[in-house]
Amino acid sequence: MKYNRITAEIASRLQKIVGSEHIIFNNADKMEPYSHDEIYEPGYTNMPEVVVKPVSAAEISRILQFANDEMIPVTPRGAGSGLSGGAVPVCGGILLSLERMNRILEVDRDNLMIIVEPGVVTREINNVLREAGLFYAGYPISMENCFIGGNVAENAGGAKAVKYGVTGNYVLGLEVVLPCGEIINFGGKRLKDVTGYDILHLMIGSEGTLGIFTKIILKVLPLPPAATTLLIPFQDLETTVKTAPMLMIKTGIIPAAMELIDRKAMDLSCRLLKKKVPYGDKAESFLLLEIDGQPEQVERDYNSVADYYLQAGALDVYVANTPSTRENFWKMRSRISEALKIFHPGSIAEDIVVPPASMHVLLKKATQLAGRYNLGCTGFGHLGDGNTHIHLLKEEGMSEEKWRQSTADVLKVLYKTSSELGGTLSGEHGIGHKRKKHLPLVMGQSEISLLGRIKKIFDPRGILNPGKIFDW
Amino acid sequence: MKYNRITAEIASRLQKIVGSEHIIFNNADKMEPYSHDEIYEPGYTNMPEVVVKPVSAAEISRILQFANDEMIPVTPRGAGSGLSGGAVPVCGGILLSLERMNRILEVDRDNLMIIVEPGVVTREINNVLREAGLFYAGYPISMENCFIGGNVAENAGGAKAVKYGVTGNYVLGLEVVLPCGEIINFGGKRLKDVTGYDILHLMIGSEGTLGIFTKIILKVLPLPPAATTLLIPFQDLETTVKTAPMLMIKTGIIPAAMELIDRKAMDLSCRLLKKKVPYGDKAESFLLLEIDGQPEQVERDYNSVADYYLQAGALDVYVANTPSTRENFWKMRSRISEALKIFHPGSIAEDIVVPPASMHVLLKKATQLAGRYNLGCTGFGHLGDGNTHIHLLKEEGMSEEKWRQSTADVLKVLYKTSSELGGTLSGEHGIGHKRKKHLPLVMGQSEISLLGRIKKIFDPRGILNPGKIFDW
Repeated sequence: MKYNRITAEIASRLQKIVGSEHIIFNNADKMEPYSHDEIYEPGYTNMPEVVVKPVSAAEISRILQFANDEMIPVTPRGAGSGLSGGAVPVCGGILLSLERMNRILEVDRDNLMIIVEPGVVTREINNVLREAGLFYAGYPISMENCFIGGNVAENAGGAKAVKYGVTGNYVLGLEVVLPCGEIINFGGKRLKDVTGYDILHLMIGSEGTLGIFTKIILKVLPLPPAATTLLIPFQDLETTVKTAPMLMIKTGIIPAAMELIDRKAMDLSCRLLKKKVPYGDKAESFLLLEIDGQPEQVERDYNSVADYYLQAGALDVYVANTPSTRENFWKMRSRISEALKIFHPGSIAEDIVVPPASMHVLLKKATQLAGRYNLGCTGFGHLGDGNTHIHLLKEEGMSEEKWRQSTADVLKVLYKTSSELGGTLSGEHGIGHKRKKHLPLVMGQSEISLLGRIKKIFDPRGILNPGKIFDW
Repeated sequence: MKYNRITAEIASRLQKIVGSEHIIFNNADKMEPYSHDEIYEPGYTNMPEVVVKPVSAAEISRILQFANDEMIPVTPRGAGSGLSGGAVPVCGGILLSLERMNRILEVDRDNLMIIVEPGVVTREINNVLREAGLFYAGYPISMENCFIGGNVAENAGGAKAVKYGVTGNYVLGLEVVLPCGEIINFGGKRLKDVTGYDILHLMIGSEGTLGIFTKIILKVLPLPPAATTLLIPFQDLETTVKTAPMLMIKTGIIPAAMELIDRKAMDLSCRLLKKKVPYGDKAESFLLLEIDGQPEQVERDYNSVADYYLQAGALDVYVANTPSTRENFWKMRSRISEALKIFHPGSIAEDIVVPPASMHVLLKKATQLAGRYNLGCTGFGHLGDGNTHIHLLKEEGMSEEKWRQSTADVLKVLYKTSSELGGTLSGEHGIGHKRKKHLPLVMGQSEISLLGRIKKIFDPRGILNPGKIFDW
């Protein structure tokens, strides 16, 4: 694809649309934060030629029309908290930041819905809903920083997906600006809708390559009155994985969360938090399990869960009886990423998903492979969903060249293993720029070609977020 | 579209693929059952030219390749229990019945999944799962007769959608034969997947126009250990509708089902069942509410629900304490369709969905309009989802001509009202042949044109289920 460069004249045209305060041009310092996302390793950055910050669908429509006419690439960006390079302007051009579209437009208690703009920080949605006795269940663990628009674009995984599902399960409607500038609504304030094809879900998870979301209608739930968190250490990973489905079948309880933390990941977050965890030197893995619901039932359920796991081979079961203990338990999980960035900068973070019962097979394979190449390795993530964040860690003294080659080799085998187990590349982080080259490992040429033909329907000139998911 | 007719030679080619026992040709009596679905009113039937009953994806692939080459229309059919003419071969050609593909291929307790063929009766899935302590929550009320393949093709509404969602929320993977004969898998045994666009959900609800499903992977849940049903009469419909969201917010309870039955519909099913219902002559509407979960919690919850409704203006609250009372309560809802067929043959059955809090506005409008045209009217359906089945009933003595004109007028206004309320044509029955002409009332030309371009990607020659949803 041959794109045009941003000239001073083009920048001035864009400035007329968004206003002079909402454009960054010819200022590398101010543009730098828009040149990367939160990918741990280097190599996935690129500077935009201009940053524009529209405030409405109408402005975005004018920008896209203009860019489409002039063959200028446009990369939409939420909070930039992604992990696949999805919001990085790899072809330069316009970086379209949604940061100013940050209004909560309506809390609709009568319909149990909320309407938000894409630049709302996800945590903020639940802050506002809590006052209304409501709760948005699709949020990811990074909710403190991420934007809801990015969550929808990536179909981000819910922290509580075991029971509640992911972002896409809660999106009822989208206002979308298509690459040619047209504004279309898909879905609406409707809990069911079989009128025509499901373009709504085609938009969700399309990583900013099919359209830009300007209004998002979310389904919300009544706020669960109570919740409790359990921390359960296991001698071995296999038991952690294998006992999970039987817990649900035997007790009829669906936990709100079932997070897996291997010993290495637990070590790192404890080091960061300056805490100790029981069985920290004995347990191969830990399960963080959350139960929510009516207060009496939560109490009954955590007793059933504890009984089950003690019989099923857990080393022990710790129940968080106070809010601060709950928070401490959760920090052991939520601070792992930060710990990795501090203690193992530049590590490779993966997001492989497999059938849940095969998680230990994948993780063992990862450890084995990493060992063979003298790499460190840790795995944590969503046990209930079969979605694991395997990190490859660079040990001291390894040359850059050796590190690059080894990790490339390991990843290739890991993806292949995932595919053989019935899994795929990414459960929630997306393909973006980072995993694009690996797509053929899990998807046939026919299917990739179908994706390309769908892309062309929405974006015939290929201006929207080029260089992501696959080449068209 | 110019299609070719089925000649004896073509029939013999098809016979070679499926075998002589699995084809019906030149036999109007045997083909007649394949000429219609369960639409109440006449006018939506058409005879196929040939019926073929393949047993595998490979056979279907060969049939579709052949039909694509020869420009012969192919209409896939499950149980024929649809309500929008989706499985009716309106252009003649090949009727492809999935009835022989009725195997349950795998119950996977370790991953909480089940793999089935499209011709399995939906009820059968839960019969098999129950023995494994599991439960498929996406089933529609018609589960006794419908096939799971049809449920997926229509994205059928769940009887328990308030808490559990609809069919599409449970489909994790599909093996699909595309119109050109290619067999592709979308999704898999994965609870999360953001690898490429979500073609899986594009297939779900595509009403047999994009591909034929030959293998379906469903997510299953642990069987809830207990459930109770409540029957709650209300003086007026508006209170029934308006108190529903506040029940959930105040108590934190999400009922498994919240079914609305207006007085007329209740009259009809009671007449069929030869039963009386309390407040049968006083209540404007009834709410059938189901709670499931752990036994102690179900008991606690139904007390909270009863307390809430007695304070919120219900006439009374009846709790089904025994399985047979529960069954009787549910029959009042599930036998309405049958009662309508018997006592008001040829009635017009709709499936409008609106924001849940606007259901009473729609139903009042329907009653008002029907009255103006001297038509009978009843409404029942899924209160929790805003999805209502309004029926227009022909009163004795009205001429066919007058009936046709009046119902056409009423429907047009009703659809327009739905659209103004933020609703749409169909929540679970689909557009099919029956509602195709109304699509422009709720969808702009740009969006319909997008649907058409998507259709052409998958089915460039337009052989698969022509005449449905929209014209391409």
